[in-house]
Amino acid sequence: MEHVRVSFSRDDNIDAPILIEGLPGIGHVGKLVADHLIHELQGEKIGEISSLHFPPQVIVDEQGVTHLVNNELYRSEKDGRTVLFLVGDFQSNSAEGHYILAERYLDIAEDLGVRRIYALGGYGVGHLVESPRVLCAVNMEHLRPEVEAAGGSFENAGGGGMIVGASGLLLGLGEARGIEGVCLMGETSGYIVDPKSADSLLAVLSRLMGIEVDHTSLQQRAADMEQMIANIQEAEEARGREELSYIG
Amino acid sequence: MEHVRVSFSRDDNIDAPILIEGLPGIGHVGKLVADHLIHELQGEKIGEISSLHFPPQVIVDEQGVTHLVNNELYRSEKDGRTVLFLVGDFQSNSAEGHYILAERYLDIAEDLGVRRIYALGGYGVGHLVESPRVLCAVNMEHLRPEVEAAGGSFENAGGGGMIVGASGLLLGLGEARGIEGVCLMGETSGYIVDPKSADSLLAVLSRLMGIEVDHTSLQQRAADMEQMIANIQEAEEARGREELSYIG
Amino acid sequence: MEHVRVSFSRDDNIDAPILIEGLPGIGHVGKLVADHLIHELQGEKIGEISSLHFPPQVIVDEQGVTHLVNNELYRSEKDGRTVLFLVGDFQSNSAEGHYILAERYLDIAEDLGVRRIYALGGYGVGHLVESPRVLCAVNMEHLRPEVEAAGGSFENAGGGGMIVGASGLLLGLGEARGIEGVCLMGETSGYIVDPKSADSLLAVLSRLMGIEVDHTSLQQRAADMEQMIANIQEAEEARGREELSYIG
Amino acid sequence: MEHVRVSFSRDDNIDAPILIEGLPGIGHVGKLVADHLIHELQGEKIGEISSLHFPPQVIVDEQGVTHLVNNELYRSEKDGRTVLFLVGDFQSNSAEGHYILAERYLDIAEDLGVRRIYALGGYGVGHLVESPRVLCAVNMEHLRPEVEAAGGSFENAGGGGMIVGASGLLLGLGEARGIEGVCLMGETSGYIVDPKSADSLLAVLSRLMGIEVDHTSLQQRAADMEQMIANIQEAEEARGREELSYIG
Repeated sequence: MEHVRVSFSRDDNIDAPILIEGLPGIGHVGKLVADHLIHELQGEKIGEISSLHFPPQVIVDEQGVTHLVNNELYRSEKDGRTVLFLVGDFQSNSAEGHYILAERYLDIAEDLGVRRIYALGGYGVGHLVESPRVLCAVNMEHLRPEVEAAGGSFENAGGGGMIVGASGLLLGLGEARGIEGVCLMGETSGYIVDPKSADSLLAVLSRLMGIEVDHTSLQQRAADMEQMIANIQEAEEARGREELSYIG
Repeated sequence: MEHVRVSFSRDDNIDAPILIEGLPGIGHVGKLVADHLIHELQGEKIGEISSLHFPPQVIVDEQGVTHLVNNELYRSEKDGRTVLFLVGDFQSNSAEGHYILAERYLDIAEDLGVRRIYALGGYGVGHLVESPRVLCAVNMEHLRPEVEAAGGSFENAGGGGMIVGASGLLLGLGEARGIEGVCLMGETSGYIVDPKSADSLLAVLSRLMGIEVDHTSLQQRAADMEQMIANIQEAEEARGREELSYIG
Repeated sequence: MEHVRVSFSRDDNIDAPILIEGLPGIGHVGKLVADHLIHELQGEKIGEISSLHFPPQVIVDEQGVTHLVNNELYRSEKDGRTVLFLVGDFQSNSAEGHYILAERYLDIAEDLGVRRIYALGGYGVGHLVESPRVLCAVNMEHLRPEVEAAGGSFENAGGGGMIVGASGLLLGLGEARGIEGVCLMGETSGYIVDPKSADSLLAVLSRLMGIEVDHTSLQQRAADMEQMIANIQEAEEARGREELSYIG
Repeated sequence: MEHVRVSFSRDDNIDAPILIEGLPGIGHVGKLVADHLIHELQGEKIGEISSLHFPPQVIVDEQGVTHLVNNELYRSEKDGRTVLFLVGDFQSNSAEGHYILAERYLDIAEDLGVRRIYALGGYGVGHLVESPRVLCAVNMEHLRPEVEAAGGSFENAGGGGMIVGASGLLLGLGEARGIEGVCLMGETSGYIVDPKSADSLLAVLSRLMGIEVDHTSLQQRAADMEQMIANIQEAEEARGREELSYIG
């Protein structure tokens, strides 16, 4: 078996200047944004990527039908421009696999005309965040002003930070190929799936891409999550009062 | 050394539409059923598969003779049809190895004319089960009615379940080759080798294959196991009463 | 870098029917016997084997000179017969590496005319052993009577035992090449380097090979080890009495 | 992706008899010395080495720009001689990777005319060291007198010591290519980044290379570190006295 297997379900000529990567990561922030955008921009699945560097398993869907663990490519048209998406449920389960997969993703990107990659993710801070910033990194210095103008923050720079996995390698290996890379990371606690952070990230990404996207469903999920957290906190406070009343 | 080495002990032309996989797993349910069927259908060993993805060891038999760790292929004839079996004592000891071995199993299956695979296993639930269901998954949606008609259940579908290892990959990778795959998993505690669950699984599999197989030896093992569990429970209750009598 | 690199320091034609493997293992029993035999039979180093499956390090000798971690081939002449030895300080540090190295050892063995391999090791029993047996396994059934006649025991057979690593694979993979394999395992606690067990093993091996070897240095090491253990036990008993005297 | 990727930023003919390796290790001693020398000798970066055996990540610099994890080659001219440096932030994250990278480093060294390698590192002793010795190993016996004359110690030899990773393999694998290798290890506690140990190492290395290098910045860092340690010790003693005063 080859290390990575790519199968395209359509082979018409694609020229897509932009690729958005939203693979799983901290708070599933990147995945939430990418999945939301695919839905809003009516993305169409055009390819599947399987690999022996993914976990050796299948997923069983609601019909009881199995699906090999894979990553997927979607494309959508917006204002005459083609946008590609790289999404899925897993990243590599080995260090070498991360490199091998990232190079393959870049091969695909080059083949399809990609000139810029937006790598989406979360930035774990270990506590709940009221107004999540969107922390950023770029793989070429000239990209920074544009990202700042769109509301992205570079306050995380300079602390010797690392970006691990697909997002990091798409920027790092993409630079050698002349593909621009912008990594957007929504601040998030790291403890929960975080649609609120995803909502902030989406705002910056929309401005960068010059498109308008409906946020409603993401904001609804964020509101639901806020409510759930509030309920848990209230329940804990109630229990605290109860315990105190036993003492008092 | 190649990753996987296959040696056939007979090379007459085989056309076997069905392959039954019963490699080790939860409760050894799949292995119990496959070994039972090989015995009942007078299966004959036709091949051995060794691999550097198996543990690096030999097994010493009762004569003190060593045997390289391997998986084995058996075949049997039943009502004019040839059935293949894939059995053994080990699965891969690495994630990549699982993929490499599964692709090779499928190569063999294709060579020998296999058009459907029954992948047998256990479904661990963490407690003893009075009447074990046979939970199922298929790799093509059209297979489901047939499996349900034979008594297989799809109640596990929809929970985001995974099937890990050889059983999962034979379905997932087999689908791309157009080989039908049905995974049958006998409910089992996961704590014991479980012939009772195997007996339930055998009933569903027999109906699916349209064959009749003697269950006696499997049911005898199940009865022995039930008796053993009853003895343990009785002993524990006796000890419980004794401890109470110290107090009372 | 190739997976395994073999360099021969002499290239005259060698025809050696017997290979003795004494790589590190339980109680270093096999290594002690092989090193003793190389010394007694005035073995000469003829080759070195390095591999990226060994630990990535060098050993610093007494002169401060580094030596790449490797395994070594020795040869000696005894009564007109050539005997090969495979010794060293390490085995593979991965499962795949064990297979790759064992196949390469067998390539070398075939090239040099080897028709029988004696794989030496320890058999850990978890307690000190007064009269260590030499427990055995063979890779072809016809070898057993000869091994029993030489004093080897097969009492360990039948318990579903495994032989892991180079010793096991030389027998398991050697069988497919038609090379006879005899594994001799000296009973040992597993807690100490065990020259006494090695002494027992050497007796069986000498009879199998029909040679006479001086045991003196091995027996001296065994006596020293016995004395050391006796001293430790005495010291512990003395401490025990002392502690009791505090109480009494 | 190839295992190791080397890109040279200049391709003029280089003939550099000496390579200094200062990759990360115990106390970062080797790295401190190599980085200091590059600075003092006005080294110029001539190449980058990336590898799928490095961690799968990018580093974010103070500008928010990402850089693929890599090792770097520098060169400098001193008294008409060219010196190469191999430095970076990571070593391999697998055993096999260490071998693969070391062979590649040696390929580069051979291409650029290297005839001697100085591998720099720390020698962890588990406690603070007043006057750190520079413990040494060589890959050819004739190198020892020269190293001793320069103040290097071989008191560590003979204890069955190991040198792990790039430093060890450059000597071990270099020897087979006829490249002289000298490993210099500054004694260090192993608990802190240790510029004092680096200062000792630099003294020996300078004498070996017959060059004079300004130590000021390294000695300043060492003095700062000493002061920091003294402050911590004082604070601990003060706390000790305070705790005692509670009791007294």
